[in-house]
This record gives sequence, C-alpha cells and structure tokens, in this order.
Amino acid sequence: MSQKETVAVLGCGLIGASWAALFLRAGHDVRAWDPNSDALAGFEDRVAGPLEQLASIGGQKEQQGALSICSGLAACVQGAALVQENAPEDPELKKTLYQQIEAVVGADVIIASSTSAHPWSDLSVGMKLPERLITAHPFNPPHLVPLVEIYGPDDRIVARAETFYGGLGSVPVRLKKDAVGHIANRLASALWREAVHIVAEGIADVEAVDKALVNGPGLRWSVLGAHMAYHLGGGTGGMAAYLDHLGPSQEKRWASLGNPSLTPDVREKLVEGVTAEAAGRSITQLEAERDAALIALAKLRQKSD
Amino acid sequence: MSQKETVAVLGCGLIGASWAALFLRAGHDVRAWDPNSDALAGFEDRVAGPLEQLASIGGQKEQQGALSICSGLAACVQGAALVQENAPEDPELKKTLYQQIEAVVGADVIIASSTSAHPWSDLSVGMKLPERLITAHPFNPPHLVPLVEIYGPDDRIVARAETFYGGLGSVPVRLKKDAVGHIANRLASALWREAVHIVAEGIADVEAVDKALVNGPGLRWSVLGAHMAYHLGGGTGGMAAYLDHLGPSQEKRWASLGNPSLTPDVREKLVEGVTAEAAGRSITQLEAERDAALIALAKLRQKSD
Repeated sequence: MSQKETVAVLGCGLIGASWAALFLRAGHDVRAWDPNSDALAGFEDRVAGPLEQLASIGGQKEQQGALSICSGLAACVQGAALVQENAPEDPELKKTLYQQIEAVVGADVIIASSTSAHPWSDLSVGMKLPERLITAHPFNPPHLVPLVEIYGPDDRIVARAETFYGGLGSVPVRLKKDAVGHIANRLASALWREAVHIVAEGIADVEAVDKALVNGPGLRWSVLGAHMAYHLGGGTGGMAAYLDHLGPSQEKRWASLGNPSLTPDVREKLVEGVTAEAAGRSITQLEAERDAALIALAKLRQKSD
Repeated sequence: MSQKETVAVLGCGLIGASWAALFLRAGHDVRAWDPNSDALAGFEDRVAGPLEQLASIGGQKEQQGALSICSGLAACVQGAALVQENAPEDPELKKTLYQQIEAVVGADVIIASSTSAHPWSDLSVGMKLPERLITAHPFNPPHLVPLVEIYGPDDRIVARAETFYGGLGSVPVRLKKDAVGHIANRLASALWREAVHIVAEGIADVEAVDKALVNGPGLRWSVLGAHMAYHLGGGTGGMAAYLDHLGPSQEKRWASLGNPSLTPDVREKLVEGVTAEAAGRSITQLEAERDAALIALAKLRQKSD
C-alpha cells in the first residue's frame, strides 16, 4: 500500500483536513464527504493551510494528489483503498457509517477510525468484516505530529496500514491490545493529572509547570523515550541497575503522586493560570506559535534522516 | 548576579562536571572540590566533554572562566558567590557540608543544592542562615537541558539565583512550595507509572511506548506545556471550554490509569523491552545519540531567540 491510492476522508473537520493534506502531499487522491454541507463546502480551504505548512517543511517526493468533494458517502468511498473516518465521537454514529461503507466497498478495503475515545472492540460490533476496521489515531495537529497509533486484530491488515501511514512520513506505532486512550493519551492524562495536582497544591503555578515541562522532560522526551531515559539513568548497568537501585524510590514516589479532582476551585486556578501564561495571545496566535515550532522541528528531523 | 563570579562546585561527578562546563562557558571562574581524590583528579577531563558540546552549539558571549581544582572544602568555597553542591543524596552528609561551608563563607553566599531527592525543608535543618540554602535541581544532562528548578524561602535570594542561572542560558523555574521531586520528576514519575502499566498489561511493548512518546506527546511538550495544550484543545473557548466539555472524560480516564508494581515479571518485561529497543547500542552510544539530538535542538532554539 505504498503506491498512489485513492483514499476516502469521511468527516471534514480539522482532523479530516489535516489527514487530507498528508494524503494529498504523499501523492494519493482524496475523496471527501461530510453530511454537514457547510463543513464540506469549506473543506478545500481548510486543507490549504495544512498543505502550505507541509510545503514549507519541504521534502515532497510525489506529485500532489487530487482532492474531490463528494456528494454522498457511497460516491466518496467507492474505489478507495482506505477510508479514514473522522466522525464525531459517537459509537452508534460510527457503527452506522461502517455498515453503510461495508455495503459499498470490496472486502480488501481498510476502514481506519481516527477515534481518540473509543476502543476497536466497541466500534467493530456488528460489522460484516470486523477485522477490516482498525483504529488509527493521530496526535493533534496530525499533519505536524508524526505519531499514528494503530490497533487491529489482523496482523496483515495492520501491516498494510503501517506501510500506508509510514508512506505519509508519519510514524505508525502498533498496539498489541485494544486500550481506551491508546498509548499517547494515556501517558498525557497521567502526566496532566500530576500537573493539575501541582497547581492544586500550590507547589507551582500553571505557567511554571508548563515552562518546566517544555525546558526539561518534554524536551528530552522529544528525543528519548521514558523507558530509555531510565535505561540511561542506570549507568553502564542500564535498566536492570536502575530498577535495582532506584526502583523502590520510584514506587515510593508513585505512592506520593496526587489524585486531584476538577473542583470549581481547581478549575479556577487552571483557567486563571493558563490565561496568565497566554499573556493576551489568542488561541489562533498560540496555535500559530505551536505550528511554527513544530514545523521547525519537522525540518530538523528531516535533515537528520 | 549576572557579572563574572567565582562559583564553587562541591562534588565532582557527572552533574558537577556538567555544571562546571556551564559556569565556565558563561565566564565564571570555577573552584572544584571532591573528597574522592580520583573524582577530583579526573575532573578537568570530565568537564572537557560538556565544554566541547557547548562550544558546538555556539553563541558564547563571554570569555571562558578558569577552572581551579582545590585541595579542600574551605579553599574551594572561600571567595565564591555561589556554592553548587552535588554531593551524594544523603541528607546527613549534605547537612554536614553546609555547616562546614557556613563556617567559612560570608552571609551573602548562596548554597545551591542539585538534590533531586530531598526537599529544602529537610536539608536546611541546623543551618545558621537556612534562607541562604536553595534547591537548584537541573535535569539530566544539565548542560544540554535548560531547566533548573529552584526553591528557597527568601524571594530576594531566589531572584538572585534566577538571574545567575538565567545568565548561563539555563531556564530557571521557581517553585512556590517545597516538594519532593520538584516539578519535573513528579511529572516524569507520573508518566512513567502509566508507561510501565501499558507494558505490564501487554497493551504495547517498551519500544512502542517510547516511539509513541517521542513522536507524539513528547514532541509536542517540547514546544507546548500540558496545561497550554488543553487550553488549545478547548478551541476558541480555551481551558474553560475544555474543562466544561472534556473535564469529566479526563477524570474518568484518570480513574482508569494503572497502578503497577515493579514485580519480577514487570521488571523482566522492562529490561527485555529496553534491550530490544537499544538493539545492541551501548549506554555510551545511546547517550551520544541523545546528546547529538539535544545539541541540534539547542542550536534550533538559539536561532529562534
């Protein structure tokens, strides 16, 4: 699945637009549909921004694919090798879509759900060929963050999907088991729980926590995983030595981590803290700053490839 | 405290060497001492590596300071404006050192502990001027990761320390309250607990978890803090809208996060997993790869300043 394909994008919001840009740039033709006619009408414009950002990174190898806006689901998915589903996080809605897709497409077509909230086992219920469904969860913003977390029960189908997403310049990561929150959002939730605890307890304010993360562990985790960091933390003895010497301290620290609730008081601290950190910058400005920084990192990673 | 100073480095291991390189490069003179004569004898050589790495990043503004190896604690700390203490994580040992330092230095000298394990309140016990002690915790490797987490009870002393560490090109972050693990290691522990859970439960292997982190949340956290990420996740309504719409799902996910123990079975999975991820690379090779990537990021951040 690394040659030029036709890919269907179902659901034309921000995630759909970001996927479409990645697909087009890799040379695939994209057929898009959304039941909301406004979303559909504005889609080409919303794909233009991500496409421009990808162009600024450089390194395009294929001639850009063509984008078609379709008038209905059947027209959209017919002839597609892969359907990327970005519908709202409503399992019933998604399951209905899968039935409609299965009624139209051949047995070898992969249906890939961008779902962040629902596991494969919930979404595949009632499908004719459940193994053709995979979860393929991108990390926001998908065209600038390479991770795609993939789960499906059929190794051959998952392998085909990995080849496809890898061909976009994305980094597919395979789960061995279905899990709510996949890997990345579980890690992010775990970290944020402690970040909220630190603010709730008055240890540091929102801006200080974010600054510590961006200039400390976040920076290091952009080049070295958490497990590998402790492997290096063990010196020449690696992870085994780390666990011997510092495993008990880690368990002790785990026991001391917080378990906050999002009470009105905590909520106020978070909203006030992040408002102070934003220092008058709008969401749009903050997103533009984030994107500029991610684009610079993407250029750097491309150079070192 | 931004002019050229004399800085004492007590404890000449890896952290001490990394600090010394940062101090020297910012133009400060460094006086170093360690009770272990082998550590002391090899110190200049161990400082040379970090100094070379810093030189490769470029942007040095001051003439490099001079390094003196001292024959005893008193000789080392006399005349220093700041003492950076990097002794082993033994509170009794550290407290004894502080008494010895206080017997020699003037009242305006700051004693900064690199401790990762002990809070200020434990270490300051028995000091003549406890407010002169601060914790100033770097993140490994200190000369390539800018974060320095600072806590002290006296705002003026902490402000002087922030100016000093900021002058090194580091990023000082102030804690409002003393806390075991400061900010960064609390966040790192919280994330790693879930990373261990994911491996223990067989959701994904060690290498997949690390790959997901480095290409997903880690990458994003190198440019955007965890709180700010959810502010953007709320769309135009920011953090308040995020908490309204997705606060309950976060609390639900928090409740579903794991609470693993480092049992022999889990330990084996971690050691085997990280061995597979290392794929034959030695700790030295892995450190060199980490450092090369961090140096590239430091160059990028310098360019965008």
